Amino acid sequence: MKNTRDKLYEVIFEADTKEGKVFDVVLLFVILLSIALVMLESVPFVREDYRSILRIMEWTITIIFSIEYILRVIIVKKAFKYIFSFYGIIDFLSVIPTYLGLFLIGTHSLVVIRILRLLRVFRILKLTRYTHAGRTLARAMWASREKISVFIFFVVTIVVIVGTVMYLVEGEPHGFTSIPRSIYWAIVTLTTVGYGDISPQTSLGQFLASVVMILGYAIIAVPTGIVTAEMMKSTSESNTQVCPSCLHDKHDDDAVFCKKCGARLNP
Amino acid sequence: MKNTRDKLYEVIFEADTKEGKVFDVVLLFVILLSIALVMLESVPFVREDYRSILRIMEWTITIIFSIEYILRVIIVKKAFKYIFSFYGIIDFLSVIPTYLGLFLIGTHSLVVIRILRLLRVFRILKLTRYTHAGRTLARAMWASREKISVFIFFVVTIVVIVGTVMYLVEGEPHGFTSIPRSIYWAIVTLTTVGYGDISPQTSLGQFLASVVMILGYAIIAVPTGIVTAEMMKSTSESNTQVCPSCLHDKHDDDAVFCKKCGARLNP
Amino acid sequence: MKNTRDKLYEVIFEADTKEGKVFDVVLLFVILLSIALVMLESVPFVREDYRSILRIMEWTITIIFSIEYILRVIIVKKAFKYIFSFYGIIDFLSVIPTYLGLFLIGTHSLVVIRILRLLRVFRILKLTRYTHAGRTLARAMWASREKISVFIFFVVTIVVIVGTVMYLVEGEPHGFTSIPRSIYWAIVTLTTVGYGDISPQTSLGQFLASVVMILGYAIIAVPTGIVTAEMMKSTSESNTQVCPSCLHDKHDDDAVFCKKCGARLNP
Amino acid sequence: MKNTRDKLYEVIFEADTKEGKVFDVVLLFVILLSIALVMLESVPFVREDYRSILRIMEWTITIIFSIEYILRVIIVKKAFKYIFSFYGIIDFLSVIPTYLGLFLIGTHSLVVIRILRLLRVFRILKLTRYTHAGRTLARAMWASREKISVFIFFVVTIVVIVGTVMYLVEGEPHGFTSIPRSIYWAIVTLTTVGYGDISPQTSLGQFLASVVMILGYAIIAVPTGIVTAEMMKSTSESNTQVCPSCLHDKHDDDAVFCKKCGARLNP
Repeated sequence: MKNTRDKLYEVIFEADTKEGKVFDVVLLFVILLSIALVMLESVPFVREDYRSILRIMEWTITIIFSIEYILRVIIVKKAFKYIFSFYGIIDFLSVIPTYLGLFLIGTHSLVVIRILRLLRVFRILKLTRYTHAGRTLARAMWASREKISVFIFFVVTIVVIVGTVMYLVEGEPHGFTSIPRSIYWAIVTLTTVGYGDISPQTSLGQFLASVVMILGYAIIAVPTGIVTAEMMKSTSESNTQVCPSCLHDKHDDDAVFCKKCGARLNP
Repeated sequence: MKNTRDKLYEVIFEADTKEGKVFDVVLLFVILLSIALVMLESVPFVREDYRSILRIMEWTITIIFSIEYILRVIIVKKAFKYIFSFYGIIDFLSVIPTYLGLFLIGTHSLVVIRILRLLRVFRILKLTRYTHAGRTLARAMWASREKISVFIFFVVTIVVIVGTVMYLVEGEPHGFTSIPRSIYWAIVTLTTVGYGDISPQTSLGQFLASVVMILGYAIIAVPTGIVTAEMMKSTSESNTQVCPSCLHDKHDDDAVFCKKCGARLNP
Repeated sequence: MKNTRDKLYEVIFEADTKEGKVFDVVLLFVILLSIALVMLESVPFVREDYRSILRIMEWTITIIFSIEYILRVIIVKKAFKYIFSFYGIIDFLSVIPTYLGLFLIGTHSLVVIRILRLLRVFRILKLTRYTHAGRTLARAMWASREKISVFIFFVVTIVVIVGTVMYLVEGEPHGFTSIPRSIYWAIVTLTTVGYGDISPQTSLGQFLASVVMILGYAIIAVPTGIVTAEMMKSTSESNTQVCPSCLHDKHDDDAVFCKKCGARLNP
Repeated sequence: MKNTRDKLYEVIFEADTKEGKVFDVVLLFVILLSIALVMLESVPFVREDYRSILRIMEWTITIIFSIEYILRVIIVKKAFKYIFSFYGIIDFLSVIPTYLGLFLIGTHSLVVIRILRLLRVFRILKLTRYTHAGRTLARAMWASREKISVFIFFVVTIVVIVGTVMYLVEGEPHGFTSIPRSIYWAIVTLTTVGYGDISPQTSLGQFLASVVMILGYAIIAVPTGIVTAEMMKSTSESNTQVCPSCLHDKHDDDAVFCKKCGARLNP
């Protein structure tokens, strides 16, 4: 019995064996299918015309996920730790809305919970070679968190002040009906989204809007500069060899001899 | 008495002691509450339904800020210098609009002054570890001020000429009613905001607009390149080694000998 | 006969000789003319007023392209390899829609195939000095493909979740009629395009939209950082020094000794 | 007489003397005033209410510019060279439209020529310290001209193909009335401008639009990467000193001793 459990553990939780890889690919397919299903269900004409087909597919997927969840709980060594882990909760939330739908009526908003199945994809991808790239990106973002916080705080201050000024300048007849709504407009403008659902009509308003736009156009350089500088630092920080003879220290990782004086480097 | 004053100074102006930190957090909370209040007051239905509650809260906050302001004036060593400093003026402007509201009617635009309370947040943040990140950003922006000025001047020239040409090409029937308004359109387009409140209708106008868009899409690289290059330079300039022999202090991180006098640097 | 064939080969497939260059320039002109023709044909009033002129020009160009295609097939050494190569197929698709138009009625959608003639321009440009720049760009993009995949996957996850939440928050009366349509809105917003055909109307929706916009404004730094870092690496990787002793070839521009065997590099 | 001419030359063409600087500042002010005048003239209600004031000011400025132009022609050593130089032509175009307006009626489009006075500002700025920053930017742009050309050609190819496909997918009822108009839409979308005057209505169209948006969001990294890499190269390419003892070569411009081995650098 122990042996079967270990084998199943390898198949379900790992991706080293051939069976584990097949399991992952099948699971990935089922997850994506279930996401597509949630989306299709929300389209009015699909919901009405294919009601029974959607229902059957939803229940099939839910039962597959339920079996998978129960297997994971049984097989894992520390069941409690798994259940309350990030992926344990996601796995649970992937199946529960469908069951709740049996007892509750008007549970329209449960769809949002089922869309969280998408996060299950991350567990599968964790096992692939994309992790390294993802980790590099995450490290660069993390290293620049303080600068990005300062930048976002700065942006928030600007949009609050600009929004308030525009509320006074344009006022209610032109759609700037309240300060929060004017701040919403300021964000739409500064980030260069520009819906156009609210737009300044007075000359002064258009002038102020122009200043905000050029500002938004220019300060996008700031987060870009932060992240780029961080990314380049993280690539160049990996070499730490120092030549024992001439003390030159910027050697490549694969260097055996000093490129400056020709002395042998210490390994 | 002197002792109490020193203690209060530490609590109000500094953040080293526990009391000082508590004071800062409470003040931050009150400031954010007062900003939320100014915003809510501008929402029509809130203003009408919760008039008295808003009034009570506004006066409570104003009195807290007034006491704080008076305390700051009394406690600080150079009262005049504080009163006419940047934060002194902000502190004064945080309380005065509410009092003025008692005597003046129709002082709608005083709200804009109360929103300046937001700037008080900066004083509190000044005392945190985010300052370093902020200073690095500010230094990079400041170092690239000339290049950014040239860039903005270049952008202004483009939008003035493009705006004038579009005024002739599209003309009044399509919303390009005057040159300033056409320049406003050019800024909306070049910065990729794109409200759509004014958009070209003729073929020639759409062709010119396309050129402006691709131009705007390409030249956003310029401020980004400026700031990124500056930021990377500023990160490598943070080295603080001082030569023990000649006291020269701008050595690279990888320097082993002083580049001015040839003495060995302390590691 | 052989001689003529070789000469024609040089003219048609290469650009070293004067005749080859003239041929390329003429072909480029005909291609651009044919693209302009396809475009003009789609404009309603041009299609009706200049029907016969367009027809004559289209047939002239098609016959030129047909002759060119037949010549290429005859002259090239490996005819089959050419026919099924990328450019062979493009060349074939450049002429076939016009002939098919003789037999089939209502072949409106064949225009899309004729626009593929544009791709023929790439073959001509391949022979110019712009190739090097293009290859550098392509290499930088290719080197960062994993990071860009991770980034796009991250963006897709965000827009799916944001789209679903907005579908629940805003709902059908405000244009968020289904989850796919809400995801479309989320993409329009996150990428800062902002058509404004769908835009949030409720306060909560506008708040969430603001968060998405600031997020989109900030994370554009990520692809920029990736590509910039890659491009700077690739410019410094262009060094082509080869060690005369051990033949190792990836030396830095500033290397004086081989980092592998310690031999002095030739300057 | 010669002496006066030399003095006037210094005042008008140079900015070294105090008088030259005063002349430049006054001229800058008059130019900006004249630009403001051209703009104001295009605003309907200003044109009607202040007709005579605008007329007087326009003629005053034109006469000032005329005197300046005549002085320049007289004073400069090579009059012909000046007249047909870039700034000579701009100076001429700054005055001629007003005189032509006396003889011609309905010369509405002459305003576009008068706006070229803005270019005269560049001559004045040429003499300031902003030139260095401008030259650095221009050099970086120029160095990356091939890569940017390839990028723009790539963007044009994408928008032509995407525009054609969208013309077939969406068709005339949804605003995609012709291929050129669809290409205009594709540019509006790819550059993230997003007016919303034309936007896809079908599911397939919205899906394709989403792909274009994410593409446009990602490939903006390319021009940014190009320009940033170029700018950083241009800042780091100024040091070429090599240590005669250890051959280290990345010394700062102000280095006297090798920072690696302490040997004196050759000046």
